[in-house]
Amino acid sequence: MLFERVVSEGIAHLSYIIGDEGKAAVIDPRRDGEVYLDIAARSGCTITHIFETHRNEDYMIGSLALADRCKAEIYHGAAMDFAYGNAVHDGDSFRFGSLSLQVLETPGHTEESISLVVRDTAGGDVPLLVFSGDTVFAGDIARTDFFGVDRKQEMAEKIFDSIMRIFALGDGVIICPAHGAGSVCGGKIADRPFTTVGIEKSTNHLIRMGRQSFVSQRVTESPYKPPYFRTMEHFNRSGAPGVPLPAPRFLTPIELQTLRKCGCQVIDIRAPGGFAAGHIPGSLSIWRNGISSYAGWFLSYENPVVIIDDFNQNTGEIIRQLYRLGYDNVDGILAGGIGSWFKNGGEVGTFRTCTVYGLRERLEREEVFLLDVRDIRNRRDAGFIPGSHHTYLGELPGHLDMIPRDVPVIIYCDAGFKSATAASILAMHQYRDLTTVLGGMAAWERAGFPIGHEK
Amino acid sequence: MLFERVVSEGIAHLSYIIGDEGKAAVIDPRRDGEVYLDIAARSGCTITHIFETHRNEDYMIGSLALADRCKAEIYHGAAMDFAYGNAVHDGDSFRFGSLSLQVLETPGHTEESISLVVRDTAGGDVPLLVFSGDTVFAGDIARTDFFGVDRKQEMAEKIFDSIMRIFALGDGVIICPAHGAGSVCGGKIADRPFTTVGIEKSTNHLIRMGRQSFVSQRVTESPYKPPYFRTMEHFNRSGAPGVPLPAPRFLTPIELQTLRKCGCQVIDIRAPGGFAAGHIPGSLSIWRNGISSYAGWFLSYENPVVIIDDFNQNTGEIIRQLYRLGYDNVDGILAGGIGSWFKNGGEVGTFRTCTVYGLRERLEREEVFLLDVRDIRNRRDAGFIPGSHHTYLGELPGHLDMIPRDVPVIIYCDAGFKSATAASILAMHQYRDLTTVLGGMAAWERAGFPIGHEK
Amino acid sequence: MLFERVVSEGIAHLSYIIGDEGKAAVIDPRRDGEVYLDIAARSGCTITHIFETHRNEDYMIGSLALADRCKAEIYHGAAMDFAYGNAVHDGDSFRFGSLSLQVLETPGHTEESISLVVRDTAGGDVPLLVFSGDTVFAGDIARTDFFGVDRKQEMAEKIFDSIMRIFALGDGVIICPAHGAGSVCGGKIADRPFTTVGIEKSTNHLIRMGRQSFVSQRVTESPYKPPYFRTMEHFNRSGAPGVPLPAPRFLTPIELQTLRKCGCQVIDIRAPGGFAAGHIPGSLSIWRNGISSYAGWFLSYENPVVIIDDFNQNTGEIIRQLYRLGYDNVDGILAGGIGSWFKNGGEVGTFRTCTVYGLRERLEREEVFLLDVRDIRNRRDAGFIPGSHHTYLGELPGHLDMIPRDVPVIIYCDAGFKSATAASILAMHQYRDLTTVLGGMAAWERAGFPIGHEK
Amino acid sequence: MLFERVVSEGIAHLSYIIGDEGKAAVIDPRRDGEVYLDIAARSGCTITHIFETHRNEDYMIGSLALADRCKAEIYHGAAMDFAYGNAVHDGDSFRFGSLSLQVLETPGHTEESISLVVRDTAGGDVPLLVFSGDTVFAGDIARTDFFGVDRKQEMAEKIFDSIMRIFALGDGVIICPAHGAGSVCGGKIADRPFTTVGIEKSTNHLIRMGRQSFVSQRVTESPYKPPYFRTMEHFNRSGAPGVPLPAPRFLTPIELQTLRKCGCQVIDIRAPGGFAAGHIPGSLSIWRNGISSYAGWFLSYENPVVIIDDFNQNTGEIIRQLYRLGYDNVDGILAGGIGSWFKNGGEVGTFRTCTVYGLRERLEREEVFLLDVRDIRNRRDAGFIPGSHHTYLGELPGHLDMIPRDVPVIIYCDAGFKSATAASILAMHQYRDLTTVLGGMAAWERAGFPIGHEK
Repeated sequence: MLFERVVSEGIAHLSYIIGDEGKAAVIDPRRDGEVYLDIAARSGCTITHIFETHRNEDYMIGSLALADRCKAEIYHGAAMDFAYGNAVHDGDSFRFGSLSLQVLETPGHTEESISLVVRDTAGGDVPLLVFSGDTVFAGDIARTDFFGVDRKQEMAEKIFDSIMRIFALGDGVIICPAHGAGSVCGGKIADRPFTTVGIEKSTNHLIRMGRQSFVSQRVTESPYKPPYFRTMEHFNRSGAPGVPLPAPRFLTPIELQTLRKCGCQVIDIRAPGGFAAGHIPGSLSIWRNGISSYAGWFLSYENPVVIIDDFNQNTGEIIRQLYRLGYDNVDGILAGGIGSWFKNGGEVGTFRTCTVYGLRERLEREEVFLLDVRDIRNRRDAGFIPGSHHTYLGELPGHLDMIPRDVPVIIYCDAGFKSATAASILAMHQYRDLTTVLGGMAAWERAGFPIGHEK
Repeated sequence: MLFERVVSEGIAHLSYIIGDEGKAAVIDPRRDGEVYLDIAARSGCTITHIFETHRNEDYMIGSLALADRCKAEIYHGAAMDFAYGNAVHDGDSFRFGSLSLQVLETPGHTEESISLVVRDTAGGDVPLLVFSGDTVFAGDIARTDFFGVDRKQEMAEKIFDSIMRIFALGDGVIICPAHGAGSVCGGKIADRPFTTVGIEKSTNHLIRMGRQSFVSQRVTESPYKPPYFRTMEHFNRSGAPGVPLPAPRFLTPIELQTLRKCGCQVIDIRAPGGFAAGHIPGSLSIWRNGISSYAGWFLSYENPVVIIDDFNQNTGEIIRQLYRLGYDNVDGILAGGIGSWFKNGGEVGTFRTCTVYGLRERLEREEVFLLDVRDIRNRRDAGFIPGSHHTYLGELPGHLDMIPRDVPVIIYCDAGFKSATAASILAMHQYRDLTTVLGGMAAWERAGFPIGHEK
Repeated sequence: MLFERVVSEGIAHLSYIIGDEGKAAVIDPRRDGEVYLDIAARSGCTITHIFETHRNEDYMIGSLALADRCKAEIYHGAAMDFAYGNAVHDGDSFRFGSLSLQVLETPGHTEESISLVVRDTAGGDVPLLVFSGDTVFAGDIARTDFFGVDRKQEMAEKIFDSIMRIFALGDGVIICPAHGAGSVCGGKIADRPFTTVGIEKSTNHLIRMGRQSFVSQRVTESPYKPPYFRTMEHFNRSGAPGVPLPAPRFLTPIELQTLRKCGCQVIDIRAPGGFAAGHIPGSLSIWRNGISSYAGWFLSYENPVVIIDDFNQNTGEIIRQLYRLGYDNVDGILAGGIGSWFKNGGEVGTFRTCTVYGLRERLEREEVFLLDVRDIRNRRDAGFIPGSHHTYLGELPGHLDMIPRDVPVIIYCDAGFKSATAASILAMHQYRDLTTVLGGMAAWERAGFPIGHEK
Repeated sequence: MLFERVVSEGIAHLSYIIGDEGKAAVIDPRRDGEVYLDIAARSGCTITHIFETHRNEDYMIGSLALADRCKAEIYHGAAMDFAYGNAVHDGDSFRFGSLSLQVLETPGHTEESISLVVRDTAGGDVPLLVFSGDTVFAGDIARTDFFGVDRKQEMAEKIFDSIMRIFALGDGVIICPAHGAGSVCGGKIADRPFTTVGIEKSTNHLIRMGRQSFVSQRVTESPYKPPYFRTMEHFNRSGAPGVPLPAPRFLTPIELQTLRKCGCQVIDIRAPGGFAAGHIPGSLSIWRNGISSYAGWFLSYENPVVIIDDFNQNTGEIIRQLYRLGYDNVDGILAGGIGSWFKNGGEVGTFRTCTVYGLRERLEREEVFLLDVRDIRNRRDAGFIPGSHHTYLGELPGHLDMIPRDVPVIIYCDAGFKSATAASILAMHQYRDLTTVLGGMAAWERAGFPIGHEK
């Protein structure tokens, strides 16, 4: 029996390959799908089936390109029309050697969401594991807000009932969800690469609160939704383009100058400190580990993207992460990193950084606008720096009118990374006196400074 | 949270690395332990603890060398004296970030066997998974025959009770055993890389038969025990030597000639057909996938070992497999493979192969000695070719007196691999008229030929 | 400065990437061209130019697919019309940082062959190295027989004069040819991964014999030309299809049975011994290291190809080698290797093997037809086994009428590999009593047996 | 024939493996020597000989550890007593298949320096290539200053004469030196991974000036010599310790705090900008690509070393580079990178950065001390920013008395990296008002600002 989980960091996407006696199925393949072919070949298996547990909105699914390479069939839930693949219905069953995969319709996250129950027909036909897609996660339940305010209650009820169907399989059944901790598809997924029905029953807070409380809570919630979701929804229904990973050019500072004039998007993946100490004016700061979460808020699919790093370490990873979000327009990397820009005497933007100790002094001493760009629900609600104003980073470009231009702006976030992204956006809009806080709220708390709470 | 399983093919050994907040533990590390350092480094973790669930007998444990590299402490059960490491007792608990690992004494396979129960203190302290060592496997229970006939009943009772302790943790708990399918430590481990308490409760045949039946059955059993187990037991108690992987020399046919005169062990890892068609006289045939299971029966730790292949593909894997069994005496590889031996005009041994159709004809036509070298319990008991005599491959060298020298010997096994090993052993003992059966018992059955059964 | 040689084993093809200050050129890219993108990315270079030193006939060039990935321009000699790319002329020059690459027209192997002379403009503009394509190799000169008997003299004169142009660059210039030892494009290329003008002047036998002798010799020669050359010539002129590496399915014995009925081509990559001891009837034996040299003689581009191995080790390499020859029709691999065929009780073909000692006995004792399938020029001419008849392996299918069907056929070659290919072809044509000689002519010579010479 | 060059970036060290017919030699192995074993195994070769062209001073040679792994013999020049290995003399010759390696004594860089001339005995015994060690490089000649002022002339004469011996081998001979561009063993090695006698004759400026001029010039020179050279010299004569690559622990900010109190050395490998914007007080800034060149000036072999990065990308490379310099005391890496230090609210040091435009303004406006830390010979001599004072970075700790403490210090270097190292050293010595110049002299020149010259 073949069973492997393929983790795509960043989007915290979990896909799976499962097989027996030479035939294998892939569940929710990512776009850069060589990995499945490699696992299959190493295991002496042919990928014959590809299952999509649902139409994804947070990444571009790789079913079509993979199916093309290995001549597999694609399957998804029947409750939505896709431009490709085959519809499956509750109870449909597929055999791989002695394994069976049976479709369990589990709507809620989307209408056509399905789960797949794996049984070993040679071992008494007991359910062994379930691919639960975006239904239940370790310690969390998937979002149910995609169908508008009117259907919030309905979808929340549906997902709860779907989970109960999964739980009925038995406590010992292993749950294989489509996302791990850090995904934008679940707010508080546990940092745990496995779970079971039994574990979720005893530990999943949302489930333990009961159907009614869960639905009531869900009705009041409005999770953030980055704009690239629309593009993903479109392509994941109509079929994602099968282009290979971009092979961006290495640009000299002079070539980059030229490209900037034509409106390219410059994305600086360095840590906040380096960006503050000197960056290319107009560039967007997203530290390398933040790409998967924040690129989709700010990057367009049109203009070419150029990547700036210090030493161009592992830029292939960045290209891959952007590619998974559908960005096929990564055209350049600044050769030699930001240092070559400096050497060449190019224009340089800077802003200041301060520690929380420095922040406290400034707050006492000057008039400043203190901006908190954290997630409101998970973070700001739990306490903030007194006197700060809040706008979530993702929504900052639409809320510039709330930020004054005549006083210094100091920005903080959770740990000091997102604040640099915010500063880069403000700088693009001609804010000039900007400071970000090293270590952010975490450092503020650690210093034992006072914490404000919403009344 | 870090959690990865490291599979060592061949011995079907499963080891694990688990950690949180920068500290990690390794459970039952294999000897070539770079893999744990790599995973830890990639995950930003330091290996601080190494747990041995028991004193292993089927492979050489890598605790000492790994501990030396990363300055970790080693822990094992208190019921046996080890020459290294620290003793732990039931209830002892270790913290890794928000995870706790608690010792559960689970004797039966060995006296000092322990399991380790993992809980997430941040998630309600519910048991999540258990490292069960050689206690319960997916679909099987570990051997309990290592302490002699007198204690068979006692050890069988102990292991059953230990498993009940594990089962008491709850159906949802994931079981992480130390072996997968193919191990010599369990006869019928399921080919499934995961299990849970719930799954085992519903599917594990040995457990479902109940304590009394299980113990009664165990008392009558005598599993095969290869001679290298003694060496492993010795080193795994006193501390395994910390030598690096051997870097064998590539030998010319002439150099190999010289070494053969000094008594080197020549092991031919090719498939049976190639061996039959031409091999170096005196060489031992073990096809590459059989090394982990059969080398320990026939190879000595003293004389240098030389490897023969067709094209020297992935010989590093073979060296690694032998190294895991403690063979540090792999000194040579025939450069250019067996073809260079032929080119050089060296002596060549051959024997014949036949299909099951050919076998049937010969059985009707001539007087032959038909030898079955399969496992008696799992295989021969289920049926055999009428007229065949049985000796298990591993025990063949001690039973040569039962094999006549004046008639042709035809050897068969399950699928046609082990019979070549048997033929190579008989050839070393001057048997001359040897034939092996392509496809073995599997092909015989597929052909629909008659099958005999012990009365 | 970036300079790397990329070796494609099998076809012994040498390609190069050279660059400076962020821009790079690839010379004669192979079809699986990720390697160039990887080197370029690692070195911070963009591939902007691709040069083809000539229209290749022995492998499918990867220019178009690579150009597509990295948006590079393709260049080749002007003396032939290509369906893609740009024509360059003698003296055309390209800059990469401080390097210049200058075109030197060097016809002879083909009409449009060019060489590229590399100079460092920052270091006095002295020629440093020359990419000589298929003009001069280490110790050899490329074939000049592609334009028919009538133009043999003309092309031989041209290549000699072209080499003189290269030699005029100076003794210290490093020569970077497009092939190394083992290529079908040169009979006796030295097994040496480097050379210089100075080294060739002192050691290249063909050059040292002088223009007149060289041309005279060339006029008399007719090197073997495998049929796939035509396909390569076609595609390398019109543009090779940009399909990805095949991802063949793993087939069960039963699926393979079905495919065989539909006319698939079964290629067995095992060593000769295993093939002799048991193979699938109708399969073609080409040992894994012989694929690049012999597949193009016998495999068609139409019917699907299925690969048979013992243990399916590194089959990816085989698929890659076939892909480089334009075989996009590799559709299957027998899952579990030949052993699964045997287990399943499938039909089995066999033939015999013998040592040279056994051969000698048989020659004395019986009437046999002894067949020598070696290269006539390099091998047979130097001596043979008395009484043997000769047909070159590649041309065997067209010369079956010379091989009797009523006596045993014994086949030998250089070392015992090609004879199994020959035997597999004879077996396909219903020859039944076949034997191949282990170790071939090499073993015969080593045994000190008599050697015959053509009068 | 096997021939591969192994490049160790950073120290720009070139080592080689060469072999034939299954036996290979390694020339000047680096300390992390698995690479040679891997190449040898892949090529079917055994490493039987290890040659040291001379006692190295810039890296720790790996001969002993490698010899131990593959049971090879070590050889070095006879003119120095080594505590291990065998002495060879001019004319000694070694055979590897058809290759011969002949010793050519080439003193100058050190007394016992040897070169190794490779001939192919099957190809007319013509010299093919020469391993020239630290004698002649591409475009440069090795240092000759290690034996004190008194022997400068003698050693310069010797090396020139040695090179003439190499040149006598013929223009076509390929030169394989022990260092490439960027090495501390030659000031101006060309950025070219190959050369020949012919190329050097036409392009090597030092050789072209003639023996007398060369010697005269050498007598006046005093290249920088980092303090770690002494340690290397000691170990490379007595035998380097055979410890494996360090496996440093990941430290929490709190653990690092504790270690700092015990005197650990904190090395920050980030780019200058990030370091300026916030660093751990007392840490040494050496950007990741500067480790090999500058660690040996400032790091001690005693106290434990802890590495700080932004995202801990490829820290294995850094550990490897330090290991090659003999640093076995890399004990820790800050888990989570510098961001975790900030989050934890640890102390933070900062200094300012400015562009050259900003610098110019400040120079006009305020009294500052402008410090140039570039190499005097290759850089400062060619022009500097008017008003600047010079001390070479490596020698800065010994020249602090020249740097005032009562005015702001602005530091510049070639491109903006070394100045951060200088700033980190000044900060350790309680200098407080520090600024480094982004882009350094390169940006200054590019801006067209005035350049000063020594009278």
